[in-house]
Amino acid sequence: MPSSLAAARTGRFAGLTPLLAPRSIAILGASNDPARIGGRPIAYMKAQNFQGALYPVNPNRTEVQGLRAYPSVADLPETPDVAIVAVPAALAVQAAEDLGKRGTKAALVFTAGFAEVDAAGQAAQDRMVAAARAHGMRILGPNCLGVFDGRTGYYATFSSSFDSGWPVPGRIGIASQSGAYGTHLYTLARNRGIGASLCIMTGNEADVTVGECIGWLAENPDVDVIAAYIEGIREAPGLLAAFATARAARKPIVMMKVGRSALGSAAAKSHTASIAGDDAVTEAVMAEFGVHRARTSEEMLDIAQTATRRIYPVRNTLGMITLSGGAGVLVSDVAEQAGLAMPAMPEDAQAKLKSLVSFCAPRNPVDATAQVGNDLNLLEPFFETMVKEGGYSSVLGFFTMVASSRRWPAMLERLNAVRAKYPDRLYVLSAIAPEPAVRAMEADGWVCHEDPSRAVTAIAAMGRFGAAFAAPPPAPPPAVPPVVLPATTPTEAEAKRILAAAGIAAAPEAACATAEAAVAAAEGFGFPVVLKILSPDILHKSEIGGVLLDVADAPAVRAGFATLMARARAAAPQARIEGVLVARQMRGGVECILGIHQDPVFGPIAMFGLGGVFVEVLQDVVFRRCPFGEDVAADMIRAIRGFPLLDGARGRPKADVAALAAMLARLSAFAAAAGPRLRAIDLNPVFAMPEGGGAFAADAVIELG
Amino acid sequence: MPSSLAAARTGRFAGLTPLLAPRSIAILGASNDPARIGGRPIAYMKAQNFQGALYPVNPNRTEVQGLRAYPSVADLPETPDVAIVAVPAALAVQAAEDLGKRGTKAALVFTAGFAEVDAAGQAAQDRMVAAARAHGMRILGPNCLGVFDGRTGYYATFSSSFDSGWPVPGRIGIASQSGAYGTHLYTLARNRGIGASLCIMTGNEADVTVGECIGWLAENPDVDVIAAYIEGIREAPGLLAAFATARAARKPIVMMKVGRSALGSAAAKSHTASIAGDDAVTEAVMAEFGVHRARTSEEMLDIAQTATRRIYPVRNTLGMITLSGGAGVLVSDVAEQAGLAMPAMPEDAQAKLKSLVSFCAPRNPVDATAQVGNDLNLLEPFFETMVKEGGYSSVLGFFTMVASSRRWPAMLERLNAVRAKYPDRLYVLSAIAPEPAVRAMEADGWVCHEDPSRAVTAIAAMGRFGAAFAAPPPAPPPAVPPVVLPATTPTEAEAKRILAAAGIAAAPEAACATAEAAVAAAEGFGFPVVLKILSPDILHKSEIGGVLLDVADAPAVRAGFATLMARARAAAPQARIEGVLVARQMRGGVECILGIHQDPVFGPIAMFGLGGVFVEVLQDVVFRRCPFGEDVAADMIRAIRGFPLLDGARGRPKADVAALAAMLARLSAFAAAAGPRLRAIDLNPVFAMPEGGGAFAADAVIELG
Repeated sequence: MPSSLAAARTGRFAGLTPLLAPRSIAILGASNDPARIGGRPIAYMKAQNFQGALYPVNPNRTEVQGLRAYPSVADLPETPDVAIVAVPAALAVQAAEDLGKRGTKAALVFTAGFAEVDAAGQAAQDRMVAAARAHGMRILGPNCLGVFDGRTGYYATFSSSFDSGWPVPGRIGIASQSGAYGTHLYTLARNRGIGASLCIMTGNEADVTVGECIGWLAENPDVDVIAAYIEGIREAPGLLAAFATARAARKPIVMMKVGRSALGSAAAKSHTASIAGDDAVTEAVMAEFGVHRARTSEEMLDIAQTATRRIYPVRNTLGMITLSGGAGVLVSDVAEQAGLAMPAMPEDAQAKLKSLVSFCAPRNPVDATAQVGNDLNLLEPFFETMVKEGGYSSVLGFFTMVASSRRWPAMLERLNAVRAKYPDRLYVLSAIAPEPAVRAMEADGWVCHEDPSRAVTAIAAMGRFGAAFAAPPPAPPPAVPPVVLPATTPTEAEAKRILAAAGIAAAPEAACATAEAAVAAAEGFGFPVVLKILSPDILHKSEIGGVLLDVADAPAVRAGFATLMARARAAAPQARIEGVLVARQMRGGVECILGIHQDPVFGPIAMFGLGGVFVEVLQDVVFRRCPFGEDVAADMIRAIRGFPLLDGARGRPKADVAALAAMLARLSAFAAAAGPRLRAIDLNPVFAMPEGGGAFAADAVIELG
Repeated sequence: MPSSLAAARTGRFAGLTPLLAPRSIAILGASNDPARIGGRPIAYMKAQNFQGALYPVNPNRTEVQGLRAYPSVADLPETPDVAIVAVPAALAVQAAEDLGKRGTKAALVFTAGFAEVDAAGQAAQDRMVAAARAHGMRILGPNCLGVFDGRTGYYATFSSSFDSGWPVPGRIGIASQSGAYGTHLYTLARNRGIGASLCIMTGNEADVTVGECIGWLAENPDVDVIAAYIEGIREAPGLLAAFATARAARKPIVMMKVGRSALGSAAAKSHTASIAGDDAVTEAVMAEFGVHRARTSEEMLDIAQTATRRIYPVRNTLGMITLSGGAGVLVSDVAEQAGLAMPAMPEDAQAKLKSLVSFCAPRNPVDATAQVGNDLNLLEPFFETMVKEGGYSSVLGFFTMVASSRRWPAMLERLNAVRAKYPDRLYVLSAIAPEPAVRAMEADGWVCHEDPSRAVTAIAAMGRFGAAFAAPPPAPPPAVPPVVLPATTPTEAEAKRILAAAGIAAAPEAACATAEAAVAAAEGFGFPVVLKILSPDILHKSEIGGVLLDVADAPAVRAGFATLMARARAAAPQARIEGVLVARQMRGGVECILGIHQDPVFGPIAMFGLGGVFVEVLQDVVFRRCPFGEDVAADMIRAIRGFPLLDGARGRPKADVAALAAMLARLSAFAAAAGPRLRAIDLNPVFAMPEGGGAFAADAVIELG
């Protein structure tokens, strides 16, 4: 049994093995014509020598492409692991019913005309899934291009992309919602000689999701790296478990998530039945698990290919060697932008390099000059000094068309000698050479890119994978007492009380029914104070002029009390008015916003940003799935562009980031505990006081569903 | 005479024609060995059948590679247009002297060991340039890889990149400071079948600069598109004239400018004698002329290749057609990010598409579905409807591996029929096909990219070129009276007076010698006011507590006057104290910063940003060469990320952007008129008042050199 067939027989995603690595396959709508969708899988599997059993089902034929055909599912000699469904849409629901009854574990439905078309299609799709679920059968699709595995010869697909060649064997697995883009990726990989021989395309995802497929690839011992193309996430648990499984197995995921623009998101919704969701939330979830978000298919393949070396440095550093200075500048630019450190060679090692080649630039990027190209006896000691004493985890050689020259084989031999001595480094070549030469260098353990910028981007990604794999488990979220939400949307004061019970502090304040009580409270807090109208019937206080800032002394409090009463009575004659809220006015703090909203896929999501223009004009915010601990909260706070404002920029005191992080973590725990009735929380502003001074919410809104 | 030889005989850059398109060439240090640097040019030019005269110079040989050799420059039978200098560094200065004496118009110096090495090398380089200039001879290099022109067979280079093939003829010209990167680019282009057969590499730029070479390419009728690789700009006039020449000739420039990071900038300085300069200023100059800044060599070649179609839509729109929805989402994302509009098809045209293919997605991206792939008679009317009625200036077909399928030739025929009817559009294919098929489609007028993201990036660039070519000339800078700078750095009040003479308004203020005068002034302006100490000896007032804000009434003015006097006497007992400056405190304005600094290459540069954190934390600023008019100033103001704050975000009144633009334009004209003694101007803050309210500088510093 090929190892793929043995793969993933245990583990959370083992249930997909009959679908993705079956031993026996029925083909419903099997065609004798190898160019038709019911004929292609059979032709491919015969051509590629699939070792399992193939059972064409066709009521009108006794033989299909030389195989015995069966009139119906009931007539099959054994229950197949999986059935390919290539019948017209009108027959597909019945086919699912027949297969389920027979005990088939999975169906792979090519047939289109379901949820992607109209409401009637959605209804038919729902009936098909219901029929399958009643028998415990899983469904891939409908409207999907299927699955293929070049190692086992399992070609449950009608893609025509094999017209131009079969997959290159390799350890990259592809999971794509889009069939067209999945095969586009596979074809690009094949044409570049990149081994990506296992490809799953999920189509409408009426049942099996791309997340589950990623999980199955993560559990598959024949897969080291996963490339995924996603338009919209349909369900969170499978995807989150898949991400966690891959990270635990040290398998990088490189993912394109399209539909990030308004236009793209609309396009995603129009073309299949996908939920585009909130792109920023998806991005946050990917970052949480160290999944690399690729913007282009080239970036995805570059990184996936580099990742197959399985070298993921925890603290990645780049040393670059070249025979001519020009590209060093470019590489330094790209590395800095990618956050990839290029530390200088140690001083004594620089002296050693200078003693070998007097005109060399020994710092890093290291310019060995044309001299080492002309005197090969210099190349090996020079390169070894750089690799050994520079201690770089990643080494990039920019040799460009030197790699096409006659002296290259001799140079490569010297480079390889050094590589063999220090095999734990990631070695990358920026080289222009004929394809067979490039393939040979890759087979020998080099990563090759023509373009140095792309090489650096891929190297930087390896370090981020390493950091994600090595990261200690995050701190647990803070414990919060059980949350009992009120029956209706609470007032500001109630909201603050509810949050205070979870340890989320509001600015000191007091509800005062009379002007004299307000003066006493203000004198207790110290001036200036803020006055706000207090009424369960007035939610948007500032709209009626119900908030007074900078109230400076006792007479001003008295006057302000009267003003607010008058305004409230004028604006809302029927409102129950309970008095005013007197609050200490925070001075010297930095205004922040903390928020929660419910994502339809990922549940409660916390948001952090600086107040005012930072959020509203610059969209300088960060998101995270709830709940999380203070370490994650502190990372979020540090991730915004405006963080220097909290960190002492422009001569300010540093803000109490620890208190802010504690508040954010507690808010996340509260939101997770509150359940789905919680629609949103808005703490705006929150004042982060100078270090040691704490953080206080000056306003709080809780929205309930 | 090949047209390149006739090129650029007139025009500002015609002086480079003997260097870049010579009729006769001497080779100093000519070698019989075709692998040596003095041998390669001869071998290449013989192999490529250069039609001009070749004169090897070598005192030790009478014949070199079958050509008659001459013992010295003096012995040459005619004065060559250009001489290639491939002699040791010690002999190069004398060689320049000999060539100059002979009347040679240009020398192309391969020899290294000059300014890129040390101070002695710099001195030798200076001597060589002086010797040349004395005779009116131009020098390319030293330390340069030279020039080649695949059309004429002029190969004044010792690059070994021709080991793997000769250039593909074509209309892209390359100019690069780096020899290694220049040939890297050329090789990439050649391997992609992109016609880039003219390549100039400038090395140390002791005399001829890359800017001049770009200018010469812009004047060359054989060149349509210019690709440039630059590490540091050495001189402004040549580059600016080159950019202007190219824009006037509608020739796009695609440029990589490396050294933008701190690390990259350091690397640039270490490797050749280049001035990295201020990257943001260079970027601003590129933007001014519509030069595209490419981040990678692939982006550069993609755009250059696409530009050779010479279709530069002024208002670029993209229509996309595909047989399957997947890539439409991705393309929509990339287009939105690139600022490329993808308007929907008109409603009636959508209905027409639906009537042809009922399941199609007719909006844009247009998903024609697999049906038009299967029924080719549908393809042509479908595509024509889209092209004609969509009216898109650019059309992208995402056909990926369909372009490798057996049905593709028939499909292509249908697409070509439509293309022939609407030849003014830019047609781009995202296709995966064998190289010869791709080349054939390109030769036929398609632009081909495997990757749809790269295709969209290139299409978007064509629109930006079109907009730059069509832009009306900018408004002239405002007239300012002649600027007479004082002998020494002026006080704030003097600075404001000087600027006021140029029409740059300060906030209303009055110098007051007594407390009572200050009260009177404040009552005239209206409260609150700002008080500042007034002393020619105290420049940094806020450091000694010499500025009081929010001074609310007459008693506070009296008290403040006394406070400032006491502080000034305590902090600077020797200072001449003239009283206080009373200024109206601006309320309701948006704080901005306007500034000027001298760039070593481009002269006075204006800067605009919002005040405070926007400049200092977010670096949200924009730069422009001085002087410029109000239209450019308004564009600058609108270009910052925080512009919504000036445009009525968050319920604010809109700011007086017209007044702000007028101030910025006047400041630029003032700076240009002030001459090089002006080091810097800092107007911080400037208050942009609500519309109609003007803009006022609340502080002004002028630094003189």
